[in-house]
Amino acid sequence: MIDKALSGDVRAIARLISEVESETPRSEEIMRAMYPHTGRAHIIGVTGSPGSGKSSLVSKMIGTLRRQGKTVGVIAVDPSSPFSGGAILADRIRMQEHSGDPGVYIRSMGSRGSLGGLSKTTYEGALILDACGKDVVIIETVGVGQSEIDIVRIADTVCLVLVPGMGDDMQIMKAGIMEIADLFVINKADREGADKVAAEVRLMIKMFHTGDGWIQPVKMTSAATGAGLDELHDTIEGHLKHVRSSEEGAERLKKRLQWEVEEIVRRRIAKITESAWRERREERVIEKLLNKETDPYRVAQEVLDSAMGDFRSGQLL
Amino acid sequence: MIDKALSGDVRAIARLISEVESETPRSEEIMRAMYPHTGRAHIIGVTGSPGSGKSSLVSKMIGTLRRQGKTVGVIAVDPSSPFSGGAILADRIRMQEHSGDPGVYIRSMGSRGSLGGLSKTTYEGALILDACGKDVVIIETVGVGQSEIDIVRIADTVCLVLVPGMGDDMQIMKAGIMEIADLFVINKADREGADKVAAEVRLMIKMFHTGDGWIQPVKMTSAATGAGLDELHDTIEGHLKHVRSSEEGAERLKKRLQWEVEEIVRRRIAKITESAWRERREERVIEKLLNKETDPYRVAQEVLDSAMGDFRSGQLL
Repeated sequence: MIDKALSGDVRAIARLISEVESETPRSEEIMRAMYPHTGRAHIIGVTGSPGSGKSSLVSKMIGTLRRQGKTVGVIAVDPSSPFSGGAILADRIRMQEHSGDPGVYIRSMGSRGSLGGLSKTTYEGALILDACGKDVVIIETVGVGQSEIDIVRIADTVCLVLVPGMGDDMQIMKAGIMEIADLFVINKADREGADKVAAEVRLMIKMFHTGDGWIQPVKMTSAATGAGLDELHDTIEGHLKHVRSSEEGAERLKKRLQWEVEEIVRRRIAKITESAWRERREERVIEKLLNKETDPYRVAQEVLDSAMGDFRSGQLL
Repeated sequence: MIDKALSGDVRAIARLISEVESETPRSEEIMRAMYPHTGRAHIIGVTGSPGSGKSSLVSKMIGTLRRQGKTVGVIAVDPSSPFSGGAILADRIRMQEHSGDPGVYIRSMGSRGSLGGLSKTTYEGALILDACGKDVVIIETVGVGQSEIDIVRIADTVCLVLVPGMGDDMQIMKAGIMEIADLFVINKADREGADKVAAEVRLMIKMFHTGDGWIQPVKMTSAATGAGLDELHDTIEGHLKHVRSSEEGAERLKKRLQWEVEEIVRRRIAKITESAWRERREERVIEKLLNKETDPYRVAQEVLDSAMGDFRSGQLL
């Protein structure tokens, strides 16, 4: 299965991503096999508010890349239901125009659990597509939460999509995504107010820019008409060249590896503590908390002690 | 300081929240002192997309509550810069009309770190305001990421604010927040399309409602004119009565306590592993990863082994 996927077999790739997404016992083995083959693809993060037209823009970007003969993988991250754990309605509505093209692989992935699960499986999905030979991997996320910030951190090039008329302009800055964007895309640029948004963004870039390195370009596009798409593509390519040749880019790769290790550590610890906590919960600890016979700090320490006991006895790793 | 805060002294309250937010050594002691006094306030979560007018709405809600003689605390969560760690521009632009009222305490809190920090300090801030005698505590968040979902989970009543003309109506569902809302507020209801949004939301509620329990009301408001605010207030009060008297509400309180313990566990573990990881990083492990002499899974295991060693020798807890 792994060999098949590495040679580009779409079904095998889909299976690997599913195993990793559901965190089956094989998922670590899969990722270790992928690891030596990673680092070739250009990983592009596309993020922006709901309603900014990200999906349509990504669909157009795929078209441009395909005309240049490049293969493309897309991971579309859907914040999922906190109850069902699955992505909602994602596959049905997304980028259907490329569904018949064997050079394009599109995958929706949901977030899961509250123990920091969103980003790791998404990232692993992107690594699988990279290892299995996609020239470009696009990660599309809604750009507000911390998880989304984590995801765009791992991309070579981060595009922040803005749109005129979304109301409070401050939101761009409040979301903290301003600083992680490598370039800004003003989408729906035929709408009234596009020039104003672009001017504001350019002003902010000037205010925040610290001297050296990459100056974030601001590009106008219309995913509906296709206007500006070629120029956007050239800018993204230019950024990759910058990343691959600069000190800034090397620093970024180091940070990515660091983040990757941290994610694995976090995941493993989550497993240990979840199990320790499950045991304690059965001992009516919640009732004791409700009656204020104990407090959350004491219970947390008990869970930790028990988890460390499990770790020592080798039960869980 | 703790006694002063518990008796309502604003400066003391502000200090306690700051200590908890910066996670000083005293923060655990503070929270343990608060804990027995919590559980009195009505905690209201207000969440919605950027541009939905949440802040203006919260400002009007405060006005209504104050006219009834209730004291109000507000925790406004700003996703913060991943680099500076601080909230951006928050205090300057928020709800200034209540700044002279001693019965209102408004606090902006930033998110921090990637180790799940956002929600715990926010929650602790809300608990402090509860313990220190505020009748109502409002937590305002941007409603997209997982962290935001965590925060609204701890509220007694969660209001999801929607607004006409935000484009893709599917976004409501994709964000997975549909299911955690106790009531929907269509703000800017004087705008074109408000009735359409309300109708769509009502349809979705019908589709997803599973039979028993609370049926999510849909309220129309205009934070600008104040229209619908009184009715919204009555609905929120009605929900609190439901929560305090139903099996559903008891279940919710249990889940909240459970989540609280988990957050404390997570935070403590993060401290241990961060320290173990810092040590390893100095050993050129990133260079080895870059050269593919090792892989992230092996490094993660080494970090864990080292962290557990620290735990056993009692260095870090």
